[in-house]
Amino acid sequence: MFYYFIDLLGTISFTISGVMVAMNKRLDPFGIFIIGFVTALGGGTIRDLLLGIKPVTWLINSTYMFVVMGSVLLAVLFRSKLKYFNTSLFLFDTIGIGLYTVVGLEKGVAAGLHPVMCIALGTVSACFGGVLRDILCNEIPVIFRKEIYATACILGGISYFLLTLFPLEGNIAFAVPILVVIAVRLLAVKYKLQLPSVYKKEAS
Amino acid sequence: MFYYFIDLLGTISFTISGVMVAMNKRLDPFGIFIIGFVTALGGGTIRDLLLGIKPVTWLINSTYMFVVMGSVLLAVLFRSKLKYFNTSLFLFDTIGIGLYTVVGLEKGVAAGLHPVMCIALGTVSACFGGVLRDILCNEIPVIFRKEIYATACILGGISYFLLTLFPLEGNIAFAVPILVVIAVRLLAVKYKLQLPSVYKKEAS
Amino acid sequence: MFYYFIDLLGTISFTISGVMVAMNKRLDPFGIFIIGFVTALGGGTIRDLLLGIKPVTWLINSTYMFVVMGSVLLAVLFRSKLKYFNTSLFLFDTIGIGLYTVVGLEKGVAAGLHPVMCIALGTVSACFGGVLRDILCNEIPVIFRKEIYATACILGGISYFLLTLFPLEGNIAFAVPILVVIAVRLLAVKYKLQLPSVYKKEAS
Repeated sequence: MFYYFIDLLGTISFTISGVMVAMNKRLDPFGIFIIGFVTALGGGTIRDLLLGIKPVTWLINSTYMFVVMGSVLLAVLFRSKLKYFNTSLFLFDTIGIGLYTVVGLEKGVAAGLHPVMCIALGTVSACFGGVLRDILCNEIPVIFRKEIYATACILGGISYFLLTLFPLEGNIAFAVPILVVIAVRLLAVKYKLQLPSVYKKEAS
Repeated sequence: MFYYFIDLLGTISFTISGVMVAMNKRLDPFGIFIIGFVTALGGGTIRDLLLGIKPVTWLINSTYMFVVMGSVLLAVLFRSKLKYFNTSLFLFDTIGIGLYTVVGLEKGVAAGLHPVMCIALGTVSACFGGVLRDILCNEIPVIFRKEIYATACILGGISYFLLTLFPLEGNIAFAVPILVVIAVRLLAVKYKLQLPSVYKKEAS
Repeated sequence: MFYYFIDLLGTISFTISGVMVAMNKRLDPFGIFIIGFVTALGGGTIRDLLLGIKPVTWLINSTYMFVVMGSVLLAVLFRSKLKYFNTSLFLFDTIGIGLYTVVGLEKGVAAGLHPVMCIALGTVSACFGGVLRDILCNEIPVIFRKEIYATACILGGISYFLLTLFPLEGNIAFAVPILVVIAVRLLAVKYKLQLPSVYKKEAS
């Protein structure tokens, strides 16, 4: 129940982040809805397709669709107020990617895959909704360019498998990686950390 | 037989619409073919992938591929004449999205999905070929920006489920939503209707 | 064993071609890795999804992921030296698309599909990693615009089915189409061949 609640909070904040990008591009209401939907559920959809889970989760569990619809409606109606919720939304989003990472990981483990593939599936679940959002909005995905976002998911995934080396109770093995993702993401934003650049500094 | 005939007319007009966009972007013959193919069959492909239908329909039923090939060839050969067929192509396209919507709907119903998911699948079948076309041509999808297109499919889908409340004979339950999609689309184009904008008017 | 070795050489050169495009776009290390990965394994992933093979190959066979990781690392570390390997990389890439074409073809044959669909799957396997790479980098795919690349795969695929008309031993039926792809691609590059343009020459 607790995880389901976090899952829905994550869905809400992913949807709202999509709506904000879509409104920046001045899309019409249908476009805004699709971008919100894809941002929230696109990563999980790609994960389900790669694993061959059929049909994809959101077709079976209608709650996701209705949560996205409600979130899009509220975000559009209160669009002028969204800036007051920036910090809350950032927190929900951060908790959301932590949870999505572990959900993806566990689906990989359930399918008997190699740990590296499980971490890849967790990262895809958490990050590729945003990748689809940026492609549909005709941008190079932001997580390929500057943010410590996928890196947080990868580190969370590594912590999950390090923990399996110790005899831990189920919920901890589930909670620690989420906290790692959240901590890395918060620290990265607070200290403006980026991945090291592979390019020479421009003379300026 | 009648529906199969409409299906192929829809495939032809979707292909030609793709070819025209591809030629505007000055793609080479291979690019023109792929854009035509994706416009015609991309929406149904996404629907089949989401539902887990395997392999996707066009791999099994070769007719679609040959219809696309023929349409691309004719559209390229008679490209200077296409403008005289604008009205016919618009009509075929409109009938095509009506039919594709209902085909997608029925596949959702057959899989036992919630009505909202069935409507989503119908809309994806009808509209997401065009979305893929625009992404491959490096544009923000046109249906996210201005046209009443997806809205027609959604209204057609709603009419389908409203009709199930009445004891109707099978073919009518199939024909009415198609007519709703066509009517909404024709009225929207005739009266230049758009979805209400969520943005303030620019001073100008 | 021999084909597996060529397969890995192809994966390496596809990855490096992705890394070079990603570095031109000045992506961060995560973006560079994803573009390398998608260029190498994206075509095969789309083929597996269309066929309904689950999970997709690279989730099961971890070797691909590790080869991509190693290739990305080496390509980034020795990025200033890559230009000295242009010819080798071009050769690996050309051999790679030949092999990928036949691998895709054979999966289609194994699924009992029509020859045209098998050729389509071979071409998708060989070429659509590059298509995904270009979409993620916000470009119209290069193979839609100018290069004889997909055409080589299609001709290789046709040669495969022409050969089945003759009583040939298995390895030859496998090797000849690869050589056809390689020969067409090499000749096209050497003589700067392009598909005939469907557009009038610009006055200039």
